[in-house]
Amino acid sequence: MSKILLLLAHPDIENSIGNKTIISALNTVNNLTIRDLTALYPDFNIDVNAEQMALAKADLIILQYPIYWYNMPPILKQWFDKVLTYGFAFGSGSIMTHKSILASVTLGSPESSYADGELERLLLPIQASANFCKLNYLKPIASYGIYYMPNRGEMDLKPVLASAEAHAAKLKSFITNFKLN
Amino acid sequence: MSKILLLLAHPDIENSIGNKTIISALNTVNNLTIRDLTALYPDFNIDVNAEQMALAKADLIILQYPIYWYNMPPILKQWFDKVLTYGFAFGSGSIMTHKSILASVTLGSPESSYADGELERLLLPIQASANFCKLNYLKPIASYGIYYMPNRGEMDLKPVLASAEAHAAKLKSFITNFKLN
Repeated sequence: MSKILLLLAHPDIENSIGNKTIISALNTVNNLTIRDLTALYPDFNIDVNAEQMALAKADLIILQYPIYWYNMPPILKQWFDKVLTYGFAFGSGSIMTHKSILASVTLGSPESSYADGELERLLLPIQASANFCKLNYLKPIASYGIYYMPNRGEMDLKPVLASAEAHAAKLKSFITNFKLN
Repeated sequence: MSKILLLLAHPDIENSIGNKTIISALNTVNNLTIRDLTALYPDFNIDVNAEQMALAKADLIILQYPIYWYNMPPILKQWFDKVLTYGFAFGSGSIMTHKSILASVTLGSPESSYADGELERLLLPIQASANFCKLNYLKPIASYGIYYMPNRGEMDLKPVLASAEAHAAKLKSFITNFKLN
């Protein structure tokens, strides 16, 4: 069976609605390892060896995060910068070929506020990095309208929860059916 | 005279060739404040109040950084996430209008390794954030082939230095001639 590594990159998962709902729904999935980067590295001091070992074992890497300011959270960029070293992730001796990578992202604004193809363009750094490392870049799973602002007054959380639950179901189904290329 | 704030976001400025050369060349420029985000916040714990005060005073904000993995350094994304708060950078009471923002970036690979318009697409998060905050987004200043890998063997640094010095001259000239819109 394929081994799956999910890297959760959320700056405040305790106060999250969307990403917390998605992660909770994956609790029962077999062969899935979840690494909460913010919890592991609150000071951004990533254990490169531990992350490379986790990466080496995985057939499918899922990047689970909220898009803020049209970009990935800083802890995930730190992961790219520190973990994807020469000789490990690219160049002679790379162990990345035959692995796949999937961006599983939530966006706060409604889909209508993005231009055609904008999500694809916002994920370009991940796609280009995947190409550079000869990783198989999969079609992303993205959900819109998933936001929560603690201390910003009352809001109806039902549509946010519904969207997050639909995202979780889609991701769970994808993982369950994932086969190695 | 216009006040200029340069945010330097480099993970290792001591071992930098390109960004260090660029910053050094700006030492004699008037009305320029340089904030080295990595030196100020080695643990990523940004002083939001101090950053907002620096931002409030500036007419022109320069983001100076190397593009790694097709994206900005994590400390700069942390700055976006923490400093650009509601009521300060956008929404009612925002103080960002009438300010301009300039991305001044170095790229390690030669220009020929990028597709037409790729740099513009890689800077989309900054452009979209600027639009969201009603900041005036300026044409970026970018230089290619600026890289240095300590402990990765001998390399001829002359072309890197020449490219960085040309970048510095261009940026210095832009700053000196910058007038408020």
